[in-house]
Amino acid sequence: MVELSNVIRNIPDWPKPGIQFKDITTLLSNAEALGACIQGLTAPWKDKGVDLVLGTEARGFLFAPAVAVALGAGCVLARKPGKLPGSSIREEYALEYGTDGLEVHDDCIRPGQNVLLVDDLLATGGTILAASNLVRRLGGNVVGYSFVIELGFLPGRSRLEPLPVHSLVTYSSEN
Amino acid sequence: MVELSNVIRNIPDWPKPGIQFKDITTLLSNAEALGACIQGLTAPWKDKGVDLVLGTEARGFLFAPAVAVALGAGCVLARKPGKLPGSSIREEYALEYGTDGLEVHDDCIRPGQNVLLVDDLLATGGTILAASNLVRRLGGNVVGYSFVIELGFLPGRSRLEPLPVHSLVTYSSEN
Repeated sequence: MVELSNVIRNIPDWPKPGIQFKDITTLLSNAEALGACIQGLTAPWKDKGVDLVLGTEARGFLFAPAVAVALGAGCVLARKPGKLPGSSIREEYALEYGTDGLEVHDDCIRPGQNVLLVDDLLATGGTILAASNLVRRLGGNVVGYSFVIELGFLPGRSRLEPLPVHSLVTYSSEN
Repeated sequence: MVELSNVIRNIPDWPKPGIQFKDITTLLSNAEALGACIQGLTAPWKDKGVDLVLGTEARGFLFAPAVAVALGAGCVLARKPGKLPGSSIREEYALEYGTDGLEVHDDCIRPGQNVLLVDDLLATGGTILAASNLVRRLGGNVVGYSFVIELGFLPGRSRLEPLPVHSLVTYSSEN
């Protein structure tokens, strides 16, 4: 069985000096690792009544549909502002400098549907919290979160709990 | 069995007047349709020796990993310029006004690997041809193409053939 942490590549000083970027493209291109990754993201949610799996643009798009298919669920997209063609709602969230936004179609979730949120990386949690707010504004029920990578030295998890937060690979320090 | 054309939504005049935009978010959120879509994209390539499935940013990301998992293959990302953290190669392609680019990591394909290209939409084929060129520059063997939607009134298909081109829903006229 492939160890996922062995197929994630560290890229120092990207996108800027001091950042140790966790590159998942080496995981994705490894067939065994990709299969294990989708299975790992899915496993905690079997038989939990998930109706929809939400993925955020762009790297969340890599995992949400595959997890949805494995769960027999549908998939919802949270996109960057201006990308969705239909009537949408928006949440803003803080970046290190300034703000960014995330949008979903306003008819993409029916009230009471159970929504699992999936993404490649949990860092400070700003993006995924914005996505959670969008789900709740449409009456959806956020059942929890699955991440490929968690940066355990950042406060993302504490902002999402007590809902269940699953991650496949956790880095406990920056280096 | 759900008919995929029934769950694709037409959005008139988006992103600009006169365009009939084919919105796949309504397909994705329908669990049965999403499952049928991934199965349909995958079916022609079972037992064809596909090593890697390439998806282009951003909507190709929705399908390539799920198809790769179903084929027991890995997945390769073609991203917009400046998004990939590792050493990359680039292809430029023409837009209606100006040019855009697509990049892959220069170590993402080993010479001789069989690569299937997957995307949501085949229109004029500019993006997917750029992706094909990237695969070939790395020594990969493009085995063919699977699309969710084909705009049959545009010349995309003729630029990809004689390689096999599969699409799930074809629109034969603009309206």
